[in-house]
Amino acid sequence: MRISELSRETGVSIASIKYYLREGLLPAGTALGARQSDYGNEHVTRLRLIRALVDVVGLPIAKVKRIFELIDEPGDDIFATLGQAVDSLPPYTTDGEADAVDYPRARAVIERLGWTYDPRYAGTAQLERSIAAIDGTGIPMSDARLDAYASAARQVAEFDISRMPQADAAPAAAIEYAVLGTALYEPVLVALRRLAHQDITARSLAGDDES
Amino acid sequence: MRISELSRETGVSIASIKYYLREGLLPAGTALGARQSDYGNEHVTRLRLIRALVDVVGLPIAKVKRIFELIDEPGDDIFATLGQAVDSLPPYTTDGEADAVDYPRARAVIERLGWTYDPRYAGTAQLERSIAAIDGTGIPMSDARLDAYASAARQVAEFDISRMPQADAAPAAAIEYAVLGTALYEPVLVALRRLAHQDITARSLAGDDES
Repeated sequence: MRISELSRETGVSIASIKYYLREGLLPAGTALGARQSDYGNEHVTRLRLIRALVDVVGLPIAKVKRIFELIDEPGDDIFATLGQAVDSLPPYTTDGEADAVDYPRARAVIERLGWTYDPRYAGTAQLERSIAAIDGTGIPMSDARLDAYASAARQVAEFDISRMPQADAAPAAAIEYAVLGTALYEPVLVALRRLAHQDITARSLAGDDES
Repeated sequence: MRISELSRETGVSIASIKYYLREGLLPAGTALGARQSDYGNEHVTRLRLIRALVDVVGLPIAKVKRIFELIDEPGDDIFATLGQAVDSLPPYTTDGEADAVDYPRARAVIERLGWTYDPRYAGTAQLERSIAAIDGTGIPMSDARLDAYASAARQVAEFDISRMPQADAAPAAAIEYAVLGTALYEPVLVALRRLAHQDITARSLAGDDES
């Protein structure tokens, strides 16, 4: 299809498509002459993903490029590739040499839970920072609370993974799922927690009034 | 105690204490003369909370002031006050006239769950925005996924509320708990979800290798 049809098909303006082509986010089409190119379904798919990552998730172009590199060349270690793709999402860890860094608070929590501990993944640094922030208030997080949170987080993760495309058969789809699923569903989870707080509090106060 | 002792007791520098006094975050002490004031335990408590909200959570001063106003004058409707305090946290909703706004996506989800629906609370606008973002990718969130997330979020919220100070007996403590608990524990929950993804994926790939 021509660029005008690609634009109609995806709802992305021709100017935006040209921008993504210039930035190297969208592969060039097949040249039909000096001024025209032919685009295929792979361009439609890629444009939808660009749209989601740039406009909806708000990722910087450089991070989106990195994710596409991983999709286009996932390599043999798909587990590591999935980790790298998700690590392209905020919040970003600032320590460049994660290999050399220990995360004592996160390690203690993860080891107690019996989960995999890998300091190279952004999740480890995120947990370390969030627990350090809590410790900074002078009221550490209790083991009971951590266990309750871990159990809930694991339930969500089990659901997520059960719906993930097979990473070995369809690595590109699995990477796309992991990245979008992480970026888009986290805000839903925290919004639902706040709404559940309200609902539970409202019910308990209503109960108080009746007693 | 004098300002120097208040500083030693809390680990907050005298310069910072003076700044918080000027900004109206910390109530003035009892004047002992033209240049000296006496501070009490309520100043120690308030300083620890300022520290947590400003330095750890990173709230702007104006939002911290708003929370202290609610703590100092919680009013009769403690449920509404708790909601307003939590709404002082990011992410902020930009629509000034929430009363007039309908949130169709959030409402559909909340009504299906049978929870309280109140468009005035930030959680509702947050859910609306996060679901709209997902819809923007062209792949809507399934009811099965929403239910799995809601169930996990509610488990966490049940735990949170079970540990909350009694709102009618100790409104200030309840507001403090709600604000700090929302701001500080959300990052833990999402970090644990990412770590659970890794753990589950690592285990399933290890299982694949063995088969």
